[in-house]
Order: sequence, then structure tokens, then C-alpha cells
Amino acid sequence: MNNVIGLRCIHCGKELSAKPGLYTCPACGPRDGILDVVYDYVKIKRSVPLERVVHSKDYSLFRYLPFLPVEPSTPRPQLRVGLSPLYRAANLGEALCLNHLYVKDDGQNPTASLKDRASVIAVMKAVEEKMTTIACSSTGNAASSLAGNAAAMGLKTFIFVPGRAPQGKVAQLLIFGANVISVQGSYSDAFQLSAQAIERWGWYNRNAAVNPYLVEGKKTVALEIAEQLDWKAPDWVAVSVGDGCIISGVWKGFQDLYKVGWIDKLPKLLGVQSSGCSPLADAVQENRPWHPVEENTIADSIAVGVPRNAEKALRAVRESHGTMVAVSDEEILGAMRLLGRSSGIFGEPAGVTGLAGLRTLVKQGRIGSEERVVAIVTGNGLKDVKNAINAAGEPIKVEPSMERLVVELKKLQLP
Amino acid sequence: MNNVIGLRCIHCGKELSAKPGLYTCPACGPRDGILDVVYDYVKIKRSVPLERVVHSKDYSLFRYLPFLPVEPSTPRPQLRVGLSPLYRAANLGEALCLNHLYVKDDGQNPTASLKDRASVIAVMKAVEEKMTTIACSSTGNAASSLAGNAAAMGLKTFIFVPGRAPQGKVAQLLIFGANVISVQGSYSDAFQLSAQAIERWGWYNRNAAVNPYLVEGKKTVALEIAEQLDWKAPDWVAVSVGDGCIISGVWKGFQDLYKVGWIDKLPKLLGVQSSGCSPLADAVQENRPWHPVEENTIADSIAVGVPRNAEKALRAVRESHGTMVAVSDEEILGAMRLLGRSSGIFGEPAGVTGLAGLRTLVKQGRIGSEERVVAIVTGNGLKDVKNAINAAGEPIKVEPSMERLVVELKKLQLP
Repeated sequence: MNNVIGLRCIHCGKELSAKPGLYTCPACGPRDGILDVVYDYVKIKRSVPLERVVHSKDYSLFRYLPFLPVEPSTPRPQLRVGLSPLYRAANLGEALCLNHLYVKDDGQNPTASLKDRASVIAVMKAVEEKMTTIACSSTGNAASSLAGNAAAMGLKTFIFVPGRAPQGKVAQLLIFGANVISVQGSYSDAFQLSAQAIERWGWYNRNAAVNPYLVEGKKTVALEIAEQLDWKAPDWVAVSVGDGCIISGVWKGFQDLYKVGWIDKLPKLLGVQSSGCSPLADAVQENRPWHPVEENTIADSIAVGVPRNAEKALRAVRESHGTMVAVSDEEILGAMRLLGRSSGIFGEPAGVTGLAGLRTLVKQGRIGSEERVVAIVTGNGLKDVKNAINAAGEPIKVEPSMERLVVELKKLQLP
Repeated sequence: MNNVIGLRCIHCGKELSAKPGLYTCPACGPRDGILDVVYDYVKIKRSVPLERVVHSKDYSLFRYLPFLPVEPSTPRPQLRVGLSPLYRAANLGEALCLNHLYVKDDGQNPTASLKDRASVIAVMKAVEEKMTTIACSSTGNAASSLAGNAAAMGLKTFIFVPGRAPQGKVAQLLIFGANVISVQGSYSDAFQLSAQAIERWGWYNRNAAVNPYLVEGKKTVALEIAEQLDWKAPDWVAVSVGDGCIISGVWKGFQDLYKVGWIDKLPKLLGVQSSGCSPLADAVQENRPWHPVEENTIADSIAVGVPRNAEKALRAVRESHGTMVAVSDEEILGAMRLLGRSSGIFGEPAGVTGLAGLRTLVKQGRIGSEERVVAIVTGNGLKDVKNAINAAGEPIKVEPSMERLVVELKKLQLP
């Protein structure tokens, strides 16, 4: 926290001192009064040489400690979170008519999603506040990352998931020893119930939208992209949007670097939702306020009909001069196939939604073939095998005989 | 290949020149004539300073290029293989009465298993030999890693899997665009059919036991362990054993470092099998030659009744003054739970079998509490969700109401 000045309400603009238990603006209330962590950028600029980061032997997001809202002395869970690979995706770029496309594979985090970046901070903040139990509601990834990071730190967890959460994600939670509450209802139901339970039992609250520190973990994906591109920000960053926290984090990260002068321009943000649940993309497209919608998409991690961080997300897109679009579930499955076949990367549906949206923007001529573009893959496809099979089809079944094999392959005009 | 002298038959000891298409000793035949890659250690010692590796900015297994059987100029697939995290596992160590326990989480590789280390080499060797199609048979992980690495490199794959391969692994293959042949029989059936098809169509052969270069990729896990422990070899390394290739690779890696003087002692190897399929562990325990057995275990990646690399594996265990044991499926599920709850690491059944065997050796007093021990987790639990649920149980289901929640938690004496 040595570089944190305080917290600013994104609704009323008031600045508050950071203190234990303060998560939302008391004046604006828990719904509107979302807080943003404010840093002393002048101090960072003066006291943190860029070279210290470049030569850091810490191969995790903690190489960016001066930009994080935790005490340097706070114990950390023993998991390597962050510093996921950024790949130059030549084959994929060719398919999309983009000559400078990169894929940031955040499915390579310890529990296989970008959410580990937030959960590691949540766990450390809980320890700083001397809490021993953490709770959250989640469509799955925030939950499994919290359970994993908490287990590594020796903390207890209560996790509220909607009934539809895929088995792979629930299995992770259970293996990590979490108390898992499967709420027989929507994500909103799970969120509401978790909020009441957190209030009643006084647990540490890891619900991302109302906990201002979590976006700070998520922003490290942007810090890494900048470092991996040798401190030249890309022209566009494409990312899927559900609650709105990740895209807000991406924007915060680039802004941090811009404010300390480590990058000299900011990227445009492309936020992508599934057309089965696109309250924010629709609002942007139709230039109107957002309103709640049904949750009707295979991309479960971004099936959020009532996004908790809508304001921050929309502001990020607007400030970056970016945009938002919605893509169909079919386009999402197509993006899974294309990414796997061209690059050997397996993303979950919500993980590749940003990539699917890129196609739309290129077709519309809004992104040119020479622009430098990063697509963030936010979660690993192993978390949702059912949809992967939907995307990819079935294997060729044969009896163990060459004769049968030859016959079956001939039918398929192989090899 | 600049440091490779040639290939030595592990059966007759004859040395051969490495050349395209030479995978097994012509004199001893494809079953017995398994080849070992021989390096010029004097040259490596003279020409490669340890500091070059230590300060390498290559965060993948290619930081160890002087120890790899590929040309420095061969193109590499764009995936970050290797340099998986080694965690100091304090909580887990406490549970096992080991004060210096480390876990090497190789489930953090691009396709979520250690096999990526072999497949990246296979793909590069295929390119060196100007092949465009690669084939293999596999219980799953070798296959998905081959499919992923080949996709990243633009090569075609034919993959033979036994009918019982878990869905998660098959889904990965399909997403990566592999031609997947699901052989309705055992692993041995799949292996035989792949061998015939490779012969017939002239594909590049990635079957690990008969391709001498793959062990060279696998050995990098040992090189990393040594580097991550600051070039002090541990007392024991525990690893699961199926075909016998990984444990052979681990031994080769430590031997490489010993021969160039980067470590000054060698670890003992603990090879662990499931008692449902333990031909090698039984042979070691009963001090007799191994013979084929049924494949009857949940740990599908090591359910190999006829291990193709038995001789190399048994030699590695013997030379290291280590041992082998078998553990029950129940003990394997218990190890999954323990690892997840204590450390936030999710391993698949075969991935944690080595860890399960550690318990046995500690109980027998063969490993003391002060010994430095590394357990290699060879694959991610997300690949086999069904068994994870078997290990971990079901979530607590409730309607979205506080009243119901309070009732349900009370039943379980929570929170």
C-alpha cells in the first residue's frame, strides 16, 4: 500500500482514506458507490526505475508490486499467478486479416483463468485485515481462483455458484476444500445470497465489483502486455465482458503505465459480449443507458444479466475511444476452433469471446490489417469440456484393426 | 544437435550416428532396441557457462538448449513449454511429516501436462526431418500435447487413443484440429494400431518409448528442478510411472547436470504406480523381471499394462538407489484432495500418484522428515473432472433464500 493515496468514488468523485472494511462509498451506497484505488504516480515515477521491473527475477504479477494495493510484507499464497505468455499469433492473424495479432493466454494461470490475478490480491487483503474466511459469488472462475489461492494461504472459503456452473469449475472448488453453495437460480440470485451471508457472518468479501482491490489485481494483465511488447502499447486490446471488472482492470493497468510515463500512448479497448447476454454491448451500440437482460449464452463466465461494474466498464471503453460488440454463441464456438487449430491454445467460450468480436470489427473495417492487436484469452477450455465437444465434434471410432481403420479413413478422405 | 555425439542402444550398447528415421537399434529391433541420446559433456562443460542459463531471458525449456537434441535454428512452436513453477509446499509437507517438501506443478504447461516437454521436441524433430504429419498413440496427455504443439507449428496429426480416454483430453485433441482415432480396446491395442498406421503412411512417430528424442524433452523437468533449487539436487524425486518414459527422462536430466558438474550429487528416484496396474512396481518389490498385467485403475495416464520403456525406467530406479511402490486408487484420490486443500494445486489422478507413494515411503521410514523431497505433479486435474468429483464430493445445493441457507449450513455444522 506504500504508493496508495486513497480510494475515489467513481459515482460522486469523493476521495476517502483506505481502511479495513471500506469497500464502497458510504454516501453513494454499495450499488453505485464503487471505489477506485488512487496511487501516487509522482512518487512511483520518482522511486521505481523501469529497469527494476525489467530485470526482476519474480516471474509472477508481483514484479509489479509498486502498482499493487498490498503491503510488501504481507504473506503471499505460494502460487505463480500472472506473467502468462503473450504469443505472436501469425496463423491466427492470417485467418483474421491481422498482420500484428498477439494472444495473451491467461488460461495459463494456476487455476486456469485470469481471475487468479484478483484472487491473489483478495487473499492478501483478507490476511492484512486479519480475516480467516473469504466468500464470493461467481459464475465459476472467480470462485475456483479464490478457493485455490485461499487453500494455498490456509484460509477458509464459502463460494456461491449459480446452479448452471460447469462441472469442471465446481470440481476445482471442491478439490480446493471450499464450502460450495450451489444456488438453484441465476447468477444474480447467487450474488444476492452471498451478499446477505457475508453481511450476516462477517466474512471477507471477494465479490469483485464491490471490492476495489480486485481490479488492481486484474490490471496486471495490461502491465504484462505492455512489458511483453517492450513498453509499446498495442492499438487495440480485445477482451470479453461480463460483470465489467476485467475490462476496467485492463484500462486501469494501461493508465497506470501511461501516468508514470512507461508507455506513451493508450490502446483502444474492444469489449465483447455474447448476444445471448449483452446489456453493455447493446447500450454502447444503441448509445443509451444499459438495462438488465436475460442470461442466455454458452459463455457462462460472462453470462451476467445485471453487470455489477457496468459504469466502470463503460467509462473504460469510452475513455479509450474503443467500442463494444456482441457475437453469437456460434461465433464463439467458431473462435474456439480457430484458436485451437491455428495456435494450439484451448480457450473456454467466455475466454475467446473477445477474439470472436475482433472478427466483427475487422469485417466492419474498424480495425485495419496493420494495427497491433492483442486478444486476451481469459480462461482455459478444460473448464468447460461439454462446450468444447460442441465446438469440435466427436472422434473417429474404430475397432482395433488396420482393415477397419483404412475403411473409416477412406470414408473421410483421409489421410 | 550441436552437442549430440550419437545414439546408444540400451540393450546391446552399440553406438550409432543420429540420422533421420533412426529411432531404434536395427540389431535389437523396435521392442528391445531403445536408443539413448549421447551428448559431448566435455564440450558442454567447456562451452556453456552455468551463468548463461541462470541469466537466460527464455522462460521456457529452451533455456537448456545445449542439452537438447535439436538444431538451434529449427523453428519452435509458439507455446511456452516448461519452466513450470516449483513450490515450497509447507502445509502439505506438514501433513506428510516432511519438512522440506517441494511440488513441481507440471500441470501448468500449455496443454496442462508434462508431456508438452516431449511433444515440443517431437514437433521440432519432425520439421527437421521435413515431415508434415505426426502420429502417436496415447492415453491422452501425450496426444493432447502433440496436437497442441503441432497446431502451433502448422503440422497435421493422427492420434490414436484408447476408448476409455477421459472426455476432457479428447476434447482438447479435437479443438486442436487433430484427426482422432478412438480405438475400441486397450492402450496396447491403440499402440499397435498406431504403429501399423505409421508404418503404412510414413508419418513421423511420436510414440515416446520408441522415439529416443522425447525423453530428452522430458528430462528438462529435472534440469528445472535443479535450477529452481539453486543447483542442489534433492534427496528424493517422486513421480508416477506408466510407460516408464518420464522417470527415465528425470534420471537423464539429473545425470546430464551431474556429468557437466552443475550438481554434485544425484537424487534417489521414487517411481509410483497404481496397484490396479503396477507391473514395474511389483517387479521391483518382488525383485523379479516384470510381466504384463491388466489395466485396472482410475489413473488413466499411467494405466499401462505393457510398459514400452520398462528397461530404461527400471535401470533409472536401480542406478539412483531409489525404489518403486504401488498405491491404491483410494490413496490416489486422497492425494488429490490433500494436494488441493493444502496447496491450491489440482492434479489429475496419475498426476498425483507420485505424491501418494511418498506417504507410503515416509510411513515405512524409508524417507526421513529432514530429507529434501520433490513430488512432480505431471498433469492438471481439469483433464479428468469425473474423478475429481469422485475425490471431492458434491456441492451444497440450496434455493436462493437466506432461510434455506441457514438451515442447510446448520445441518453441516457450518460456518
